[in-house]
Parts: sequence; structure tokens; C-alpha cells
Amino acid sequence: MSLPAEFSLIARHFLPLAGKGALALSDDAAVLDTPSGQLVLAADAMVAGVHFLPDDPPETIGRKLLRVNLSDLAAMGAAPLGYLVTVALPKGTTPEWLDAFAAGLAADQAEFGLSVLGGDTVSTPGPLTLSLTILGTVPPGQALLRRGARVGDELWVSGTIGDGALGLLAARGTLADDGFLAGRYRLPQPRVALGQALRGVARAAMDVSDGLVQDCGHLCRLAACGAEIEAGGLPLSDGARAALAADPALLPLILSGGDDYELLFAAAPDDASRVVEAGRVARTPVTRVGRFTAGTPDVRVVDPNGSELSLPRGGWSHF
Amino acid sequence: MSLPAEFSLIARHFLPLAGKGALALSDDAAVLDTPSGQLVLAADAMVAGVHFLPDDPPETIGRKLLRVNLSDLAAMGAAPLGYLVTVALPKGTTPEWLDAFAAGLAADQAEFGLSVLGGDTVSTPGPLTLSLTILGTVPPGQALLRRGARVGDELWVSGTIGDGALGLLAARGTLADDGFLAGRYRLPQPRVALGQALRGVARAAMDVSDGLVQDCGHLCRLAACGAEIEAGGLPLSDGARAALAADPALLPLILSGGDDYELLFAAAPDDASRVVEAGRVARTPVTRVGRFTAGTPDVRVVDPNGSELSLPRGGWSHF
Repeated sequence: MSLPAEFSLIARHFLPLAGKGALALSDDAAVLDTPSGQLVLAADAMVAGVHFLPDDPPETIGRKLLRVNLSDLAAMGAAPLGYLVTVALPKGTTPEWLDAFAAGLAADQAEFGLSVLGGDTVSTPGPLTLSLTILGTVPPGQALLRRGARVGDELWVSGTIGDGALGLLAARGTLADDGFLAGRYRLPQPRVALGQALRGVARAAMDVSDGLVQDCGHLCRLAACGAEIEAGGLPLSDGARAALAADPALLPLILSGGDDYELLFAAAPDDASRVVEAGRVARTPVTRVGRFTAGTPDVRVVDPNGSELSLPRGGWSHF
Repeated sequence: MSLPAEFSLIARHFLPLAGKGALALSDDAAVLDTPSGQLVLAADAMVAGVHFLPDDPPETIGRKLLRVNLSDLAAMGAAPLGYLVTVALPKGTTPEWLDAFAAGLAADQAEFGLSVLGGDTVSTPGPLTLSLTILGTVPPGQALLRRGARVGDELWVSGTIGDGALGLLAARGTLADDGFLAGRYRLPQPRVALGQALRGVARAAMDVSDGLVQDCGHLCRLAACGAEIEAGGLPLSDGARAALAADPALLPLILSGGDDYELLFAAAPDDASRVVEAGRVARTPVTRVGRFTAGTPDVRVVDPNGSELSLPRGGWSHF
């Protein structure tokens, strides 16, 4: 099933069920009002062989799921509070595997300042399947939403783009790598501090999980405008730069691959220095990669000469 | 894996990760303090072929998972607020199946007064796997906990016992049934109104998911006392009564089977009339089935002559 099919599945079957706080299921998380602030909630599931490799180190499997959810909190500008996790274990899962799985979660709990609140462990005749619900908080009215970009706003991204998709190739052994790219695939870096620093600065934000172009398209649709991304200005890691130099045909994957878990956000041109300051405070690189434009909600990617690059439609999907 | 093994798995691997509000993972849900009250959170997962039959009607599969979680809220005395659900769908899941699945959830949202806040849909090469996190609220300090029973307290249960386990046999076609028992297995009745009515009345509470005797043992261990259950006084449905009359060897299954999702709670003898009043207000039958006793945390089941019945150890487990 393609990603658009997933969206239509959600729209058809689950949107009619959505309540206040669900933000019409269009954002990275739900936002519930409480008298002392807003509670931010997100849930993600991962299946062995679909979202991670069955022989990935158990330390990284739990951390990746936690970090994917932390990235949803980051996209909303929320501070982590706690999480619930359900684990469907195949027969024969060993205590040693579980030790390593829990040790990975413990390391990230310490790093990101949250703890487990509950969950469930069940057995499955199928592949290892994990589901995690995360809770965070934001001050009243300060949650960053996907909607809100305006024509003329600049488009920014944190960190580097493309490492996740290239890292999957590297983890599968089909791309040369010194371990950096595979590590980025297995253990993304949720931009929790940056998300909080961008409260009141970014006009719209989300995390890049389905691919830069695809996710930028979401911001455009919610703002009823277009966007232009300058391919020459993309922030690339040394590993991605080397891979691209060796094989320029990897550019579409860098632009449309998934699993980056960087923040993608809109800010007014006058707020550029505030964005840079937020990046400095959060010790997170931020790069201006394009701008929002008038017109239909299409994302154009242009090369340094201003010519539009042709990309395969849609993003990269697990589905 | 037996249920005790599941408990030791949780104690070994997840208890070290538990934070404030997780209640040492010993209760049906976590409780988070907020200035306006307490937020109650629980999560459960279900796998086709393990927790429900793959050919169960799709309308009931989602509702069962929602109701199992609502039962956790009920056990804490919480009012439902919302939920997040993740769904791992096997290839070939049809839109018609999803329509029916969502329609079941919609019916229960209306019945229990909550709505979906978010979630995730992914594909799986394995069986249909669902995970649901539920949120509820209780006034400050009024959450019902599993700990708190005292020697001399009376043991109460809501509704009828044994229908879930007998209903699984009926749904599999190995027990005669006019549809009532199978219906109870497929669609438990979470005692949400009763749980709220028992705030300030019950001294300890939980829901019966693993079997009456097994779950009563949990209340005993947390109170460091024993309990005695009178087998002759168990509330049985007409269907269970007929099954038991036809085959008296079903008694252990009634006592130790799972999936009842009734409330099991302790109350002081002086509060018996308050318990009855709570049942009346919540339009839910309540029955006194035993009492908490001094001694080791063992659950004795006695027949009308006071003789102890011998039961297989432990409860019924999916694991």
C-alpha cells in the first residue's frame, strides 16, 4: 500500500472517530488542554522486517521506536514526560535479548529525561511488533503545529538530510559506509531541545519521517501554498556527501527517502536570526533550504541554476 | 510462557525503567498528577490467534481491545478521556474489514464517551496486531489502586464470573451455547460507571483479566494477606450455570479462566451498603464472594461445607 493509500485509509476509517485534541489527525501528535498547559500525545508502531531489520542490535530497536516518538514530541515543541510501550514477542525471545532491549530504553530514558509509565507484553506467532505511546507537555497555546506556514516564509531543516534512507542501504550492505550512515538509520537523533527552542519562532513544524519532499508537501497542503527547495543547499553529512559523489543518482533518495527524523519548519524571513539562535541554544545545526511560494501545494526542487529537478512521485513508505 | 514468567519478565526488564506515576507497574494503569486531577493511562496489545480468533467479526475486534482498556480505567475509578491506537495490518486487509473495524470503535466511542486522539497504521507480514493506549481522569487522590485491602475486608465482584473463559470454548465450538457466552468473550462489558461509583468506597480494586483466583492473589500479595472465596456464592450467568450443571468439571475454568473484565474489589464490612448503593447507581450487579484473611497471600476457594477446593496453580494466560 502506498503512503497516499495510508492517508486515505486514515481519513476514511479513523478521522470520523477523532475527538477534540486530535487535530483532525493531521499533526505529529495530539494536544490535550489541561489547566496547567497542554498534554501532547503520539503513538507509533514498528514491525521487524518492515521498520527495522530483524538482526538489528536489540539495544537499538527499542531506542529507535522511542526516538521516533520523541521526534513527534520535538515536532510539536513538547518536553518529554513518559511513555507506554507494548511488545509482541515471538516465541523463543531470550532474556538476553530483552536485557539488551531494556538497556537501550534505559539509556535513552536518561538521555531524554522520561520514564516508562506502563505497557503490555504479549506473545505473537508473527514478527516482533512494538507499539509506543509518548506523552509530553507544552505551555498553553505554544504547541508547534503543521498548519501555519505562509507564502514568503522560509523553509528550514535541522541536522542533515538523507542519512536515514542511505543508512538503510548501508545496513543492508548495498552501500559503502564506515558505520556512520547505518548508525543514523538505526538510531535517529530526535531534535527535542530544538523543538522547544522553536516555540514562538517557527510558524509550522513537523519531523521528516517520510522524506523531505513528501513531508514538505504536508506543510504546503495545510497552508494552501507551494514550496521550492534548493537542492544545492541541502545539509548533507560527510557520509551522504561521499555517497552522492560516488553515485549522483542517489539524489532522489536523499530528497524523498525517509527515517531522517529531523525537524522541518517554516519561519518568517525576519525571524531568521531567531531560528539561528534557537539552533545555537539547542546545539543543533539548522539550515535554510527553501521557501514557501504562492500557488498549488506542490514542492519544486531546483538545482543551483534554478532548473526544476524531476523526482519520483510521493515519498518512501513502509506501507 | 506462563503468566508468572510474564510478571518476572516485567519485573526484570521494565520495572527498572518505571518512573513516577507508574505505580511500580503493579496496577492496571499509571496515574499522573496534574494540578486539576490525575491522569490515568493504560495500554494493552492483542494479536490475532492469541487474544482473539482470526475470524472474529471485525466489529468486535477493535471494540474488545478498547473495552479491555476501558476495563483498566474502570479498575482505577477513572472516567474515559480518549485513546491512541496502532494497527499492524496483514497484507490483503480489505477496506470492508477496516470499515467494520472502525464502525465497532465508533459504537463504543458513543457508548463510553471518548474519542480517538491519534495512532499509527503499519503493515505486517504476521498476524493482525493491535495496541491501544487509553487516557482517563480521576479527581485528585481518588484513583482506586490494587494495594489497600485489609484483613477482614470483604471481597466483591461485579457482574458474572467465568463467561469469558467459557465463551472462548463456545466461540471455538467446543461448548454448547446460544450465543450468549461467545458474545461475552468477544465483547466484555467494562464496568466504567461502577469504578467511578466505587471511588472512596472500595479500598482496593482491579479488573479480572487473568482469572478470579489469580487476580485475587494480586490483591492479597499487595496487602500481605490471604483471601477466601466461597464457590457456592459466585455470581454466574444463566449460560455459565447451564454449562456447569452439564459438566461440573468446568468449575476450575470458571474460577481461574480469564477475560471476564469484571471488577474485583475490597471493601470494609461496614461499607457493604455503600457498595450495594454504588452498584445501584451504576446499574451493575455486585456480589460479595469472600473475604480477606490473615496469613500468607494464598487464595482459598471453599465449597458450601467449608472444604477447600483444589485448583490448578496460576491463572489462564495468553503468554
